[in-house]
Amino acid sequence: MNYGVVRYILGRILQAEGCFLVFPVIVGIIYGESDIWAYLITMGICLAVGTLMSIRKPKKGGLFLKEGFFVVGLGWIFMSLFGAIPFVISGDIPNYIDAVFETSSGLSTTGASILTDVEALSRTNLFWRSFTHLLGGMGVFVFLGALLPMLGGNSMNLMKAESTGPSVDKLVPRLKDTAKILYAIYLSMGFVEAVILVVLGLPVYDSLLLTFGTIGTGGFGVLNTSISTYSPAIQWTITVFMFLSGVNYAMYFLILRRKFKSALKLSEVRLYVCVYVICVALICFDLRNYYSAFSENIRQSAFQVSTLLTSTGYMTADFDKWPEFSKSLLIFIMLVGACAGSTGGGIKMSRVLIICKSIKKQLQMLIHPRAIKKIKVDGADVDHDVVRATNAYIAVFCVFLAASTVLLSIDGHDFTTNFTATLATLNNMGPGFNLVGPTCNYSFFSPFSKIVLIIDMLAGRLELFPILLLLTPGSWKRRL
Amino acid sequence: MNYGVVRYILGRILQAEGCFLVFPVIVGIIYGESDIWAYLITMGICLAVGTLMSIRKPKKGGLFLKEGFFVVGLGWIFMSLFGAIPFVISGDIPNYIDAVFETSSGLSTTGASILTDVEALSRTNLFWRSFTHLLGGMGVFVFLGALLPMLGGNSMNLMKAESTGPSVDKLVPRLKDTAKILYAIYLSMGFVEAVILVVLGLPVYDSLLLTFGTIGTGGFGVLNTSISTYSPAIQWTITVFMFLSGVNYAMYFLILRRKFKSALKLSEVRLYVCVYVICVALICFDLRNYYSAFSENIRQSAFQVSTLLTSTGYMTADFDKWPEFSKSLLIFIMLVGACAGSTGGGIKMSRVLIICKSIKKQLQMLIHPRAIKKIKVDGADVDHDVVRATNAYIAVFCVFLAASTVLLSIDGHDFTTNFTATLATLNNMGPGFNLVGPTCNYSFFSPFSKIVLIIDMLAGRLELFPILLLLTPGSWKRRL
Repeated sequence: MNYGVVRYILGRILQAEGCFLVFPVIVGIIYGESDIWAYLITMGICLAVGTLMSIRKPKKGGLFLKEGFFVVGLGWIFMSLFGAIPFVISGDIPNYIDAVFETSSGLSTTGASILTDVEALSRTNLFWRSFTHLLGGMGVFVFLGALLPMLGGNSMNLMKAESTGPSVDKLVPRLKDTAKILYAIYLSMGFVEAVILVVLGLPVYDSLLLTFGTIGTGGFGVLNTSISTYSPAIQWTITVFMFLSGVNYAMYFLILRRKFKSALKLSEVRLYVCVYVICVALICFDLRNYYSAFSENIRQSAFQVSTLLTSTGYMTADFDKWPEFSKSLLIFIMLVGACAGSTGGGIKMSRVLIICKSIKKQLQMLIHPRAIKKIKVDGADVDHDVVRATNAYIAVFCVFLAASTVLLSIDGHDFTTNFTATLATLNNMGPGFNLVGPTCNYSFFSPFSKIVLIIDMLAGRLELFPILLLLTPGSWKRRL
Repeated sequence: MNYGVVRYILGRILQAEGCFLVFPVIVGIIYGESDIWAYLITMGICLAVGTLMSIRKPKKGGLFLKEGFFVVGLGWIFMSLFGAIPFVISGDIPNYIDAVFETSSGLSTTGASILTDVEALSRTNLFWRSFTHLLGGMGVFVFLGALLPMLGGNSMNLMKAESTGPSVDKLVPRLKDTAKILYAIYLSMGFVEAVILVVLGLPVYDSLLLTFGTIGTGGFGVLNTSISTYSPAIQWTITVFMFLSGVNYAMYFLILRRKFKSALKLSEVRLYVCVYVICVALICFDLRNYYSAFSENIRQSAFQVSTLLTSTGYMTADFDKWPEFSKSLLIFIMLVGACAGSTGGGIKMSRVLIICKSIKKQLQMLIHPRAIKKIKVDGADVDHDVVRATNAYIAVFCVFLAASTVLLSIDGHDFTTNFTATLATLNNMGPGFNLVGPTCNYSFFSPFSKIVLIIDMLAGRLELFPILLLLTPGSWKRRL
């Protein structure tokens, strides 16, 4: 482990976080709230510690894959630990573990909350809480990659660790440009949504916060009732933008490049649309006697499938009260998740695709044992490394799922609660079922369980391996 | 598909089942029960249909891997369908789907029951119900392989489809001898257990039935209270033999060959013992206030871990009422299962071992990206095919688990019930939690759900692929 590099990049990350704190300060000034002091103090801490850590450039600049995963994992933990400070200083979330929970939930775009009354937060705090979604959605290292060439050409290893999906491709030859394009699409989409919401009658403040929650697929809202009290037009807008945020950004890039044919042929996006349509249809059918009007039925079904498939976690209906068939279906689409290369969580469509093709290959091996078959996606062979990484991801996912469920059970709550709380945090979803259902929150868990859930959220956002690496004692060794 | 071969072997299987029906007839004669007629009629049907199907030898004898999986899948379905007939004729289980459920539960050594009152069965029916465990435990095709050289040297493909674990090895060069050795160990272990139970005061009839349920890791008992009313000595005996039945039979073979060192080094068996000891210790600790006497605590813990780890399904305590930590732990050891090459169910220790090593390898790839590492078990490289088959198995397992849970949810029961019912049948366990808890049964499910569960049980016993192949329309095509 090259600790010099790790220290240096962590310092840079803290400096960046300090800069981002300008935004809640501006909000605080606009609304004349005294909480700005909490943010100014935290900003000072972040900038001071960050500068101290990064003042001395590392002697050897090598940033290998391992350091990339290591520094991304630690970076997100640092951002959660420091980003939680204003909540504590301002007194809105006095317990530090709760504040870290809320911050890592925001950064990881989970949207799980320990707050029983969201509306009691000051406008400044509420803004920062949602702003973390914007940061976490596309990724902080991707953001930095767009601005500064941090350590020569090795920043790819940082993006690999932070981006979603089994294989990370550069859209354009230069990494810096790729990061810029990604952020441009991301922020443009957000801009369009915010404008539509303002046109539909929402205040600018609320529109911004809901947009952060949508395009980051986070799920923090403005009201205690999440999205359920807004007009159908606003609900449909959010439904559409949640759906769009779950699409692989490579498709938007192809569309921008006017390669419409290639864009429409992306098999991952096709699978995503198929799963979406089938699930909405099945749930609509299952709820035919639950809602009297078809318009409400389809709106509720489409919204809930969007929110759970993309792991956003907004809600307009208490789906915990829906019939069991719809509930079971929702649990499994929570697992599947959105496309790779999107801001959504879950196992990701491309992994599901690779796994389905592996099963098909295995069946074909039984039928024609001597045939040599390669797994293909979009006409190209899938690299053996990607298949292996996908299988390893699924295996680690199962390990996290089992270990976390068992650790949560020490608190004594029921299996559905523990299992779906783990699923909801590991997939960066937010709500689960039973005690963590859509109308509930995570405040009742013990501090120990909250720490387990914080690890789940960060592990889920970073696709397990950076956090697994940090939890492996051997990886902390200095390089020989 | 070579349908001639399939027809021929299915005929042979039915003939064999007809012969096995001699045993319940003998029991019926001893106890002077009129049910023997039901068995004589079924015997006649099996022998007649079996002889008709196998009277004409197939023209081409080729039994490829695909036919092997196909015929084993169909063979087990046929045995369930025909083996259910006596229950219906005798009137003890009048509904045919229920009777098939009970028979396939027996053959697959699941031990899930639709009976509310086991003790109401005639002694003949109760015997046949448990006898199916003996048949299914080691496997019918393995049995036939020991007796007749069915189709030249290709019977290995039948054993591959029927035996448990990711890779099936012949213990000795000749397949027939391997099958004989396996059955000899299996029946000897049963003999020892039955003798001990008789010595401990159980009637011969009860001893035999409990032995069938133990060494086949089935779980059908004689009393409505399963094992809970027997003396501690009997409970301990069954605990030990359940544990021994979950060990890879390769270890017993090595011990018989006096290769004690190699036997003790088997990493799968070591992992099995480790998991066993750790789980018993954790559950004992969790139950320290639940049972007043330590002797009872350790007996209940050891029994329940044995029964769930080996997927037997006997029970001495209503573990659904245990603290949540113990319950969660039990759900996950249900998943893990016993050793490959044993009569136990579940994912199998050797697969868990391969998966853990894959994760380790993936982590090492992050740390040293250029290192070339092979996965090793017991000093030998694990073949790439085995790793791929293991990953495919896990993937198919998840697909079955999700699909079955969603299909069961149509009945409207809660998630824990549907999820653990699927787990309990897919792992050939028997009891689950909530409505299918250890003191409950499966009678309340709709006929559709029962058919889903029957498929789960057979798929679980045959390790998914034979049944998946039957469910794949393309595989039914004649060979070109």
